[in-house]
Amino acid sequence: MRGSAVAALTTCCASVLLGFAAGAVADDRAMVAEIFRTALAEGRSHQLLGELCSLHPHRLSGSPESDAANLWAKKTMEARGLEVRLQEAMVPYWERGDAMEVRVTVDGQGESLSALALGGSVGTPLAGIEAPVVEVDSLEEVETLGEAGVEGRIVFFNRPLDQGQIKHFEAYIGAADQRVAGAAQAARFGAVAVLVRSLSFLDDDYPHTGGLRYEEGVNQIPAAALSVRAANRLSRLLSDDDGLRVSLKMDCRQREEQLSHNVIGEIEGSVYPDEYITIGAHFDSWDVGEGAQDNGSGSVQSIEAVHLLEELGYEFRRSVRVVMFTNEEYLVGQPFRGGQVYAEEALEKKEKHYAAIETDSGAFTPRGFGVEGPPAMVERVRSWLELFDTTTTIHYVAEGGGGPEIWALNELLGTPTFDLRTDTQRYLDFHHSANDTFDKVNRRELELGTAAMASLLYLIDSRGLSDEGDGE
Amino acid sequence: MRGSAVAALTTCCASVLLGFAAGAVADDRAMVAEIFRTALAEGRSHQLLGELCSLHPHRLSGSPESDAANLWAKKTMEARGLEVRLQEAMVPYWERGDAMEVRVTVDGQGESLSALALGGSVGTPLAGIEAPVVEVDSLEEVETLGEAGVEGRIVFFNRPLDQGQIKHFEAYIGAADQRVAGAAQAARFGAVAVLVRSLSFLDDDYPHTGGLRYEEGVNQIPAAALSVRAANRLSRLLSDDDGLRVSLKMDCRQREEQLSHNVIGEIEGSVYPDEYITIGAHFDSWDVGEGAQDNGSGSVQSIEAVHLLEELGYEFRRSVRVVMFTNEEYLVGQPFRGGQVYAEEALEKKEKHYAAIETDSGAFTPRGFGVEGPPAMVERVRSWLELFDTTTTIHYVAEGGGGPEIWALNELLGTPTFDLRTDTQRYLDFHHSANDTFDKVNRRELELGTAAMASLLYLIDSRGLSDEGDGE
Repeated sequence: MRGSAVAALTTCCASVLLGFAAGAVADDRAMVAEIFRTALAEGRSHQLLGELCSLHPHRLSGSPESDAANLWAKKTMEARGLEVRLQEAMVPYWERGDAMEVRVTVDGQGESLSALALGGSVGTPLAGIEAPVVEVDSLEEVETLGEAGVEGRIVFFNRPLDQGQIKHFEAYIGAADQRVAGAAQAARFGAVAVLVRSLSFLDDDYPHTGGLRYEEGVNQIPAAALSVRAANRLSRLLSDDDGLRVSLKMDCRQREEQLSHNVIGEIEGSVYPDEYITIGAHFDSWDVGEGAQDNGSGSVQSIEAVHLLEELGYEFRRSVRVVMFTNEEYLVGQPFRGGQVYAEEALEKKEKHYAAIETDSGAFTPRGFGVEGPPAMVERVRSWLELFDTTTTIHYVAEGGGGPEIWALNELLGTPTFDLRTDTQRYLDFHHSANDTFDKVNRRELELGTAAMASLLYLIDSRGLSDEGDGE
Repeated sequence: MRGSAVAALTTCCASVLLGFAAGAVADDRAMVAEIFRTALAEGRSHQLLGELCSLHPHRLSGSPESDAANLWAKKTMEARGLEVRLQEAMVPYWERGDAMEVRVTVDGQGESLSALALGGSVGTPLAGIEAPVVEVDSLEEVETLGEAGVEGRIVFFNRPLDQGQIKHFEAYIGAADQRVAGAAQAARFGAVAVLVRSLSFLDDDYPHTGGLRYEEGVNQIPAAALSVRAANRLSRLLSDDDGLRVSLKMDCRQREEQLSHNVIGEIEGSVYPDEYITIGAHFDSWDVGEGAQDNGSGSVQSIEAVHLLEELGYEFRRSVRVVMFTNEEYLVGQPFRGGQVYAEEALEKKEKHYAAIETDSGAFTPRGFGVEGPPAMVERVRSWLELFDTTTTIHYVAEGGGGPEIWALNELLGTPTFDLRTDTQRYLDFHHSANDTFDKVNRRELELGTAAMASLLYLIDSRGLSDEGDGE
């Protein structure tokens, strides 16, 4: 790729190389177009994601599988010429175990319902739990029912996503309280376990896991997600027989904290070597499926965005760090350890972090950037939209950006943070489930995301984030 | 749906109904939001497309299957309260037949290559054709080779799509000349048949068919598409052995013209009953796959866009015609008969056609509208963008719009024409192949397209296309 891309660039687009310092609009438009063209024609994100998903599909932070994946990331970045180190982070560690069974008896016949333990859940006793079930559609309903309606029962949270929401995330947060806080709420009133309808728009049989949050002083009870189809089935069975009993077996457990790592690859800047731009993604994933959309895609896009600019002959003015962050999944309501450690070390070393870019919205067509920074900076980045093919890829810049991997950088160091926004209508079809596999990723959409991140990185580094003293 | 949607609207969004006449921005924004919300939560495009694809997957115009599908469309529109008629159109008729075989002999072993006859192709003699193969990457190369290099051979056009194109259609038209004009060009220099690499971005084994164009006075020779994988295989085999012979059997044939129909459903306008807005799509499809993306999706979206507005209690000011057009596929370089007949009748009857909307870009997230009309009209429609959720759905209006179904209306009557633009990165994965099936359609993306069309129809009808004398 290097040969042909650089040859093409130097013959067809010599003005681009000459224009790096000047930052002229026409030259940057040509550069951005070249980034997109090269990513689509020769990009390696798709191939790299296929390799990751087949070699290291399960990357729950703290697990041996995650350690092996981190070594793969190190080797992969080294092969692209980055200086790579592992940064230690202690992380909570939860094991799913083997047993996961939700069973009902209908007309004398046993029947299994598709289910997955929620991340962080305690297991059941070895013999399992059997109890009657009460279906509710909110945390509030549990309170209304009180101990009389809940004690000794399995609480079944069955409020569906609001399909009418145009943004997937609005639907998601509108229902996620059941998954996150359902177990604690039900335990408060004496429930023995909870089952939660999966946070998915599809009517299929994949259960979707995700983190839960127990509360201090409240009994920890087992919690599992049912597939949407299983939830509908259970609801129908309960409407026929409200005395229906469900048996539940889970041998998951919280273990002691483990040593995990952020994997950090670095390139030294040619003009401002002491200023850092971070580009990265959480590299940990759930232990089902392959973590292809969440967030293998963002991981390989971060690596390949930097690689692509280098292949195109661009010389970074600032030092760039590609970071595979650990431990974004499954902790809820706590600082994410990978991002926290990264920012704390930066603070301690008094590093100057110029900007940080992350992505965690799946391998779909890129549409916008989020920017967490002062209004003038948001406006400046918005003015760059003229450089993109706005009918096909990036067409908006929103206030507020970043993500859990880089929020601590913003909080502790005031670093402006950015994230990539994609077309996420399909995101929840895969999210946190065995359906999140490589074969569902469209190559072009993935590579377009890489190109969008590379373009943003290029513009931040070459144009700078303010008029003063840089980039113009 | 009617009850709940209207109830929701009258309780939550009474201002919307009151605002129809005034066309105030806030009210129209609420109406557009309600259209999108209702489509996502309760829309029936997905269910309807599933029904169409399972009952009438093959709808090649002029075929008995297409006639049966037209009756389904009539019944479907009647069930939604439209006055439906069939409009006659004579269409060319081509039959694929059963036999389709491309074989090579490698190391004494016969091997089949995945192939599909191109639409309109003549067949081979019953015994088939066997000949050596010459691989080329352009029409020009055939001319360069001349009779000496081509006569008596099968010409294999193997220029791939340019993956670097950010817009799928640019890549498509950059390679489609091989499929459309390859047979005539090869025949001019004495070739006995042509094989053409499929117009797909994927490296898979689905051949993609499509129309070809023979030329007057030039021998008509058989032409078939190879899957991308088969094309790559054949190319490798030829590089090992340029004397390789390929055998080809096809029993497709052009038949005499058949009577086909446009299916037209009508609702009378309350204010301007003599002015028509047409909303429609080509309903014919290829005879492989299910024509789900091309163009079952656009067909059900057109039906459901009108249905949705009615369910929301909107009363059309102008008469609206939902048209399932026949005969868009496979004719190349000729007027499409369905659209032609529709416009000719309108001209003859001196009908006033206020606007026409079509869609044929697949069931993907909607992004924009194309507008064929005077600059002031384009600007007017562009000003409506503020009514949409531009980060998630419609965010641009482009000059130039419509499609082959409604071009004749524009040409003969000067009707402004519109089309829906979607995120088409995946479009060619399915297009004209057995891979174009219902299970590849995402429900939310499909329903969003319906909502976008409904919103445009609503705005054209309620606000009008100019300031003068209407809509404001």
